[in-house]
Amino acid sequence: MRQKHDKAAIICEGVKILRMKGYHDTGVDDILKACQLSSGSFYNFFKSKEGFAIQALEQYNQVYQDYLDGILKHTDLSPLEKLQRLYGSSVQRHVEDSCQLGCLLNSMTSEIGTTIPAISKKIQADFQLSSDRIAKTIRAGQELGEIRIDYTAEDLADFLINGFIGASTRMKAGAKPEPLHLFLRTAFEFIKV
Amino acid sequence: MRQKHDKAAIICEGVKILRMKGYHDTGVDDILKACQLSSGSFYNFFKSKEGFAIQALEQYNQVYQDYLDGILKHTDLSPLEKLQRLYGSSVQRHVEDSCQLGCLLNSMTSEIGTTIPAISKKIQADFQLSSDRIAKTIRAGQELGEIRIDYTAEDLADFLINGFIGASTRMKAGAKPEPLHLFLRTAFEFIKV
Repeated sequence: MRQKHDKAAIICEGVKILRMKGYHDTGVDDILKACQLSSGSFYNFFKSKEGFAIQALEQYNQVYQDYLDGILKHTDLSPLEKLQRLYGSSVQRHVEDSCQLGCLLNSMTSEIGTTIPAISKKIQADFQLSSDRIAKTIRAGQELGEIRIDYTAEDLADFLINGFIGASTRMKAGAKPEPLHLFLRTAFEFIKV
Repeated sequence: MRQKHDKAAIICEGVKILRMKGYHDTGVDDILKACQLSSGSFYNFFKSKEGFAIQALEQYNQVYQDYLDGILKHTDLSPLEKLQRLYGSSVQRHVEDSCQLGCLLNSMTSEIGTTIPAISKKIQADFQLSSDRIAKTIRAGQELGEIRIDYTAEDLADFLINGFIGASTRMKAGAKPEPLHLFLRTAFEFIKV
């Protein structure tokens, strides 16, 4: 049986497996099986498991940046409302996944840290990109007088991002949404004027 | 060559390996090699890798509870000062580890979530124990008028714990301490009156 394989579809399937099983427990065989792919095609596309993971992070980041676009470019919301919409909607997505699927950047950081330099570099760049975009929205909210100005926009962006990482890790520990709701209450009380 | 093996020492070595490599990438062989242990002795002590991980979490939790004791039972510090000492000292420990070693509970949650029920149950119980103890200190600070009372002590304890999980994950992404320092500034500003 001949199968035509779409690289994007393989990555999409691989992201799901990585989010469920983590990097080390995901074998190339798991991906071959899920995509009915030959080993030769896999190595032709990705060169190595590490190469695959970097492309999976790239696809995951692209989807997240598009999601940020969809919310942060709203013209009928104030900067603070955009951020509330963004995190409220992220909580909703976790609840729809039964609070069992973590963020790929978060879980790969916990597993890998800086031990695989190419992956670490990609993770840091992706975090930075989101942080820069959220900081830009915060800066607009500071200029409008909606968001406190005694912290830099960059610090408040990292406060939101890191707080959400912690809340979603704790969510995953018990498969319960309460840590996410606590994050929404405390984080927005902290940043708004 | 006959070797007498001390179970506590094996667990101690195993915790180090788990913190560096994570659960799935730690093979029983890694532990056997690091401890010059036979496979028979390992399975005699721990029954399985899962059984070993639960005992490793137990040892890790015991060390953390002793550490909490050492700080929270200080008689010359106010409740708020105890919490500042606790987290200030945790940041210091991360810096001494070059910001590369995460918390075992955090990384095992990210990797395993609720997929291995016995480990998940242990992780949740350990988080809850720390949360209860920190909440007790927060309650004392609320009674003294040092800590805000418009959130329950339990919510503020989880706010601190989850915030520190997020900060230490982000620290690990770049092996840099800035996220920890941002946590200290924002979290204590939020909880104190």
